[in-house]
Amino acid sequence: MEMEDEVIPDKQALDDGAVEQQVGLADAFIQEIASLLDQNYTDRIQELCRDLPAPDAAELIVKLDSARRHKLIEVLEDDLHPETFSYFDHDLLNDLLEHMSGKNIAAIVSELDSDDAIGLINGLDEERQGNILRHLNRNLRAVVEEGLTFPEASAGRMMQREFVAIPQFWTVGKTVDYLRAAATTLPEKFYNIFIVDPMHRFIGTVTLSNVLCAQRSVKVDTLVGEEYVTIPVTMDQEQVAFLFRRKDLLSAPVVDENEQLIGVITVDDIVDVIDKEAEKDLLNLSGVSDTDIHRPIIATANSRFFWLAINLVTAIAAAWVISLFEATIAKITVLAVLMPIVASMGGNAGTQSLAVAVRALATKDLSSSNSPRVIAKEAIVGLINGILFAVIMGAVVFLWFHNLQLGMIIGAAMIMNLIAAGFSGAMIPIVMSRMGHDPAQSAVVFLTTVTDIVGFFSFLGLASWLML
Amino acid sequence: MEMEDEVIPDKQALDDGAVEQQVGLADAFIQEIASLLDQNYTDRIQELCRDLPAPDAAELIVKLDSARRHKLIEVLEDDLHPETFSYFDHDLLNDLLEHMSGKNIAAIVSELDSDDAIGLINGLDEERQGNILRHLNRNLRAVVEEGLTFPEASAGRMMQREFVAIPQFWTVGKTVDYLRAAATTLPEKFYNIFIVDPMHRFIGTVTLSNVLCAQRSVKVDTLVGEEYVTIPVTMDQEQVAFLFRRKDLLSAPVVDENEQLIGVITVDDIVDVIDKEAEKDLLNLSGVSDTDIHRPIIATANSRFFWLAINLVTAIAAAWVISLFEATIAKITVLAVLMPIVASMGGNAGTQSLAVAVRALATKDLSSSNSPRVIAKEAIVGLINGILFAVIMGAVVFLWFHNLQLGMIIGAAMIMNLIAAGFSGAMIPIVMSRMGHDPAQSAVVFLTTVTDIVGFFSFLGLASWLML
Repeated sequence: MEMEDEVIPDKQALDDGAVEQQVGLADAFIQEIASLLDQNYTDRIQELCRDLPAPDAAELIVKLDSARRHKLIEVLEDDLHPETFSYFDHDLLNDLLEHMSGKNIAAIVSELDSDDAIGLINGLDEERQGNILRHLNRNLRAVVEEGLTFPEASAGRMMQREFVAIPQFWTVGKTVDYLRAAATTLPEKFYNIFIVDPMHRFIGTVTLSNVLCAQRSVKVDTLVGEEYVTIPVTMDQEQVAFLFRRKDLLSAPVVDENEQLIGVITVDDIVDVIDKEAEKDLLNLSGVSDTDIHRPIIATANSRFFWLAINLVTAIAAAWVISLFEATIAKITVLAVLMPIVASMGGNAGTQSLAVAVRALATKDLSSSNSPRVIAKEAIVGLINGILFAVIMGAVVFLWFHNLQLGMIIGAAMIMNLIAAGFSGAMIPIVMSRMGHDPAQSAVVFLTTVTDIVGFFSFLGLASWLML
Repeated sequence: MEMEDEVIPDKQALDDGAVEQQVGLADAFIQEIASLLDQNYTDRIQELCRDLPAPDAAELIVKLDSARRHKLIEVLEDDLHPETFSYFDHDLLNDLLEHMSGKNIAAIVSELDSDDAIGLINGLDEERQGNILRHLNRNLRAVVEEGLTFPEASAGRMMQREFVAIPQFWTVGKTVDYLRAAATTLPEKFYNIFIVDPMHRFIGTVTLSNVLCAQRSVKVDTLVGEEYVTIPVTMDQEQVAFLFRRKDLLSAPVVDENEQLIGVITVDDIVDVIDKEAEKDLLNLSGVSDTDIHRPIIATANSRFFWLAINLVTAIAAAWVISLFEATIAKITVLAVLMPIVASMGGNAGTQSLAVAVRALATKDLSSSNSPRVIAKEAIVGLINGILFAVIMGAVVFLWFHNLQLGMIIGAAMIMNLIAAGFSGAMIPIVMSRMGHDPAQSAVVFLTTVTDIVGFFSFLGLASWLML
């Protein structure tokens, strides 16, 4: 029996006290490799990296800068576990594969599970795809080509072709004998056995623990759980993930339009989907379309430009509202000092409502049956905090500028803007989602447009009306 | 063999075309129950809800308003699957359990897996906890009480006490015979078998597929995988989740300080942790401490107040910067019109950098070995977009106010603020994380303080210097 301790002193941070470092590569190790690369100590690098598990090798490559990254890949070449390449995002993958021949990439792809192979090829441009496909063996090529025909982000793209299916009339004994005899041809890991009819249509799932605990004479189809799900090959991955969570599934069969079993999706892929969906919400809310940490500088600036340009348009609209009151500001300059406070408080209160609504839509805690209630609640929360901050800000302004009327005006504007913020913070993502858009995408732009305009208009408008 | 179709026409949306509705309860069903509740048709409600699976029942309860929610629980009482209660967040759970006796809650807790039982009791106040614990049987009570002694959000809180462990000298045949004989006393679902020495210390993990595919005469300890991990009972859940993802684990053994096996963590709990951690980042970045969609209005307003108060302080600081230039604004009012544009662009560009950095820290794509590079990159991206928007905004201002000098001033301020935004957007979460804080928490407050102050100061400062 081989035993390997999880902590490899050379590669793991022992001295670095941070909890962060308990799992994953130590920064010191990465820096050591970087300096060895600079000194061209290739033998030592190969020695240190040869036995790195795929996720560690991927982390090392990710954290080096671009020049060293390419150098390391060249140095390691054949020592890299093919699975290493399944850990990179599209930006990094394209960058790395650019310098490799189609034949070499095909050799990597051949070693991967079918879902990882499709994922890897998927992000490349068509010419490169063709170049790689030519070097694959006929079977794998057919699987990959078919996989690429399923819609992006569908069950068909996520599923693995390797699974264990048996006829419904088998007994536990026959099943166990078959598994023992066929051991070498079965997938490396499997969690369930699927039962199919003679047309290869899906009939039911049996868990391995049920098979193991049953007597040999038991018919497998009596072990099928009462409740099960099948996943249509075209189902969107977000739906698939929701189903897995809802039913606490470990793996689920994927069927085509004839109910024939064609693949299996396992929970480790679901973990990635859940993580990616959460990432999308976080980044979209902040005006970034995609993680761009590995993207070159110009491409990053370029991808962020669009959102900033939209924000510029809305900021100019807010400035235009201010310009309507230029004459008032010329007479009462202190309004210019105070107006950003009203806008800022509205923007922040609205973002709170927005984030809660976006999250609740993602978890389906929010849907049309309770959306009016949630919108009303957010508006009332805005009213309550509006009143509190109206009192606070009124007092601050009175103490600062010794002007009670100005304090009351900023208080009134604060209440109006916080109600508008709560209302639109909840309303915008609900409407976006109802219209079939991503509720997080651009929501902040719409929201701050509302809170800036309401904030400036109410504050400067009231001041013009009452103080001039 | 029982077969149940996944789609129950009565409860599932067939007419509602939205993809959202493929999984989960139909809104029409929820509205029907609401109206049946209002009309006190309790028999019909019991009939419709009796066979709802736990997640569906939980969704129904969550989406009703508070009054109907309590009424439904009263109506269903004994028909509710105990697991239903494991789907609620703390706010909702406290609200629901308030009206139930300790004995009734204890009856529910007794039916749950140990991790769910601990989770349910965990969120309640101490008096209520004592009340429930008194009604549990001695074994479960000991397990729950011990579970509650482990640190919040640690492996000890997540683990299940139910697992299958066998001695290292057993053969596959003996193991299978044992499993068949002990079937009724084993956990309902298990994915791995753990091998222990006579002191109950963990030795290795065998997957069920390996056991199933091996001959009866094989010794189980020869099937132990080369690489495995054990999880210390005190490990933080975020670390546990990272480890599961990194190693593609399905379940992992939890050990105490003597390496003795005391529990198991399964991947379905990890899915929840990953989801909660992502939620925390999303909400923290937006200034909300927790999902409060089910929290009463006053409590919601109260929990959001703190963040808004901090924002008020920073907004007042920014207003103070403006007040330094009141004399300038009095002479050139158009500065008041334009200054929010510079601040707004800085805030948005900074939020982009912030979100990317927070996300990269969470995925550990960003650590001390590459943080200087990432900060430099963000500052350069800020410079590039700053130059582009300087040209655009300069042109807009020239066309709007026919003032070239003002256009050049706003352009220069834009460049300075976008560099500051990129730099601090990446820097702030990195420093927070280095100091052991959550990188998302309050990061936006610090960021907008920087971008507001740099924005106002550079624009109004340059204008005062050059235009007066």
